[in-house]
Amino acid sequence: MTQPVRIAVLGETADFERRVAASPETVKKFIGLGAAVAVESGAGLASGIADADYAAAGAEVGPRAAVLAGAGIVLGVQAPEPATLAGAAPGARVVAMHAPAANPERAKAYAAAGYEALAMELMPRITRAQSMDVLSSQSNLAGYKAVLDAAAEYNRAFPMMMTAAGTVSAAKVFIMGVGVAGLQAIATARRLGAQVSATDVRSATKEQILSLGAKPIFVEAVKGIEGEGSGGYATEMSDEYKAAQAELVSSHIAKQDIVITTALIPGRAAPRLVSDAQIATMRPGSVLVDLAVEAGGNVEGAVAGEIVVKHGVKIVGHRNVPSRLAADSSLLYARNLFNFLSAFWDKDTKAPVLPDDDEIVKGVRLTQGGKAVHPVLGGA
Amino acid sequence: MTQPVRIAVLGETADFERRVAASPETVKKFIGLGAAVAVESGAGLASGIADADYAAAGAEVGPRAAVLAGAGIVLGVQAPEPATLAGAAPGARVVAMHAPAANPERAKAYAAAGYEALAMELMPRITRAQSMDVLSSQSNLAGYKAVLDAAAEYNRAFPMMMTAAGTVSAAKVFIMGVGVAGLQAIATARRLGAQVSATDVRSATKEQILSLGAKPIFVEAVKGIEGEGSGGYATEMSDEYKAAQAELVSSHIAKQDIVITTALIPGRAAPRLVSDAQIATMRPGSVLVDLAVEAGGNVEGAVAGEIVVKHGVKIVGHRNVPSRLAADSSLLYARNLFNFLSAFWDKDTKAPVLPDDDEIVKGVRLTQGGKAVHPVLGGA
Repeated sequence: MTQPVRIAVLGETADFERRVAASPETVKKFIGLGAAVAVESGAGLASGIADADYAAAGAEVGPRAAVLAGAGIVLGVQAPEPATLAGAAPGARVVAMHAPAANPERAKAYAAAGYEALAMELMPRITRAQSMDVLSSQSNLAGYKAVLDAAAEYNRAFPMMMTAAGTVSAAKVFIMGVGVAGLQAIATARRLGAQVSATDVRSATKEQILSLGAKPIFVEAVKGIEGEGSGGYATEMSDEYKAAQAELVSSHIAKQDIVITTALIPGRAAPRLVSDAQIATMRPGSVLVDLAVEAGGNVEGAVAGEIVVKHGVKIVGHRNVPSRLAADSSLLYARNLFNFLSAFWDKDTKAPVLPDDDEIVKGVRLTQGGKAVHPVLGGA
Repeated sequence: MTQPVRIAVLGETADFERRVAASPETVKKFIGLGAAVAVESGAGLASGIADADYAAAGAEVGPRAAVLAGAGIVLGVQAPEPATLAGAAPGARVVAMHAPAANPERAKAYAAAGYEALAMELMPRITRAQSMDVLSSQSNLAGYKAVLDAAAEYNRAFPMMMTAAGTVSAAKVFIMGVGVAGLQAIATARRLGAQVSATDVRSATKEQILSLGAKPIFVEAVKGIEGEGSGGYATEMSDEYKAAQAELVSSHIAKQDIVITTALIPGRAAPRLVSDAQIATMRPGSVLVDLAVEAGGNVEGAVAGEIVVKHGVKIVGHRNVPSRLAADSSLLYARNLFNFLSAFWDKDTKAPVLPDDDEIVKGVRLTQGGKAVHPVLGGA
């Protein structure tokens, strides 16, 4: 009889991180596959999950050292420092967001320690991997929360209200960047009754914007629009088009009450979408929410972890927005991890088998056998 | 030619008060009626109205003493202390929320000073006065904001979301007290995609709850339900009914994620709707919002101005909730005041005439000719 693989779920240690990498639901499912699961005491508290909930699902709950002892798989949200994993089995797999572009040294330390680092945020965007895609699951919730964060800071109501004392007009909300977060932001602002518009560098998003009942803001009469390039990225546009589009967006921003920016490019600095000069054209009391603030910011003057007032306009720069909805974001993140590992589960050995030539494995595997193996680390 | 009546708009001095009693719109309209309007510098700032906006509407803007000099009408949100009104015309009318039940001494000081205090929150709830009803206009916005305040503190999303990583279930929101605030809370929670239920001591609210797409929580099979009494207040119910209803509500609360209480009785302490024992039955991470916290609270343990955690449940007790949406609440409050004064405007004297025998005047007039004249003050 095979010894079941031991899965360790660690408490997060990064600032502002309230999520957890497993839920009672995924604990139960891993045990159903034949694994043993151990959860660090208090790991779920900030997500509303008590130790007793994990224990009821069948997990062993205890201090970090006991949880790690002999673990063949370690689950985390933000990757732990490899030096803190003492006791884990040799070659243990560490499934987490490793942020290798921002932390190449940590990733190399994983190689040196002999662990197999699996970076969930590098999951290829292919159909088979959709249910494992942590960037999508977390961005979706961030898009929702961005709208609520805007509404919390806004001095007026979002919906039009017809009252005995007269009408209150609907808030004008503009979403810049129509990926997963932007689409959910459009949907949420529409739910709340706002008048919503949106734009993106990919003109192919126009139909998605329309399908959610919002108004696309794109220059119509200028040549040089190329549409969506390969992999969903924008192709080159003519200078004439770029200038006309920038002017259109500028004049549009001046009329908005709320602007939410969502443009993130994995592993790169966020593009600048709103300048200080544009903020100065907005009505005092307006609100900007910058979902890319931790990646350098889409909005000039945005500060991570702060609400800054410029020209009478509030610039909201909350850190780690998915973590602000930790109960739901943990639930989905935990499912992403389960979906990934269970897709490769071997019934006989009761452990995942990750083939070297699998597109998903190649996408997420950073280190293996003492070496950095991913191109992002200069590996093979 | 008649000297135009001078209307003074004061900056508010009470803690947590961000509203203002006039807007550029109402300033313009008062001037259109032949009045002169003077606004204290900075009065509108917290509502997003600059001094220049008032000036552009035709108001004189200056320090308090200059604004008050010779004013026949003083507009406020929360009534100022009469001692701070030096310079106003003898017998000047002070139109504001006077809270005479909580501040009988201040109201009497108004009489002693010879001012005519007009208490807007005592506006009779009759059709003709709907557009002057400050309690309605402000409660409506409070009901909206209560839902957003709940969503801000809640660790999950409100709408059901179907994602590649699985479904996130809709939040269960229960509204207790279905007046103006409760109705808007139902509508807002529904907009956000929550699963909404509501109850009230008046069983006649059942149809309103249904018409907004929410589920009414009322005992069906017990005798002794009397329905709505005169003036919208509840009539006596049988003890059997009361016990059954209390039990139903208790078991319902235990299953909710969000409970919003809105039961205010003007001039009296708020009724207790949720006990500590009931809070203990709720799932940790749930959120209670108590809109009556400043009147003693509907929720046991609620503290004005604080977010308290009991049994893992957050009890949100924000002060002065309409003031948290000051731009819109000021706009509507200002219109209420204009609608009141303009309804009694005399074209010849270019000033309001308030007849002693008018139902509205009798409802709101606290003091006149050096005397307390309202029953709430022991007057005639």
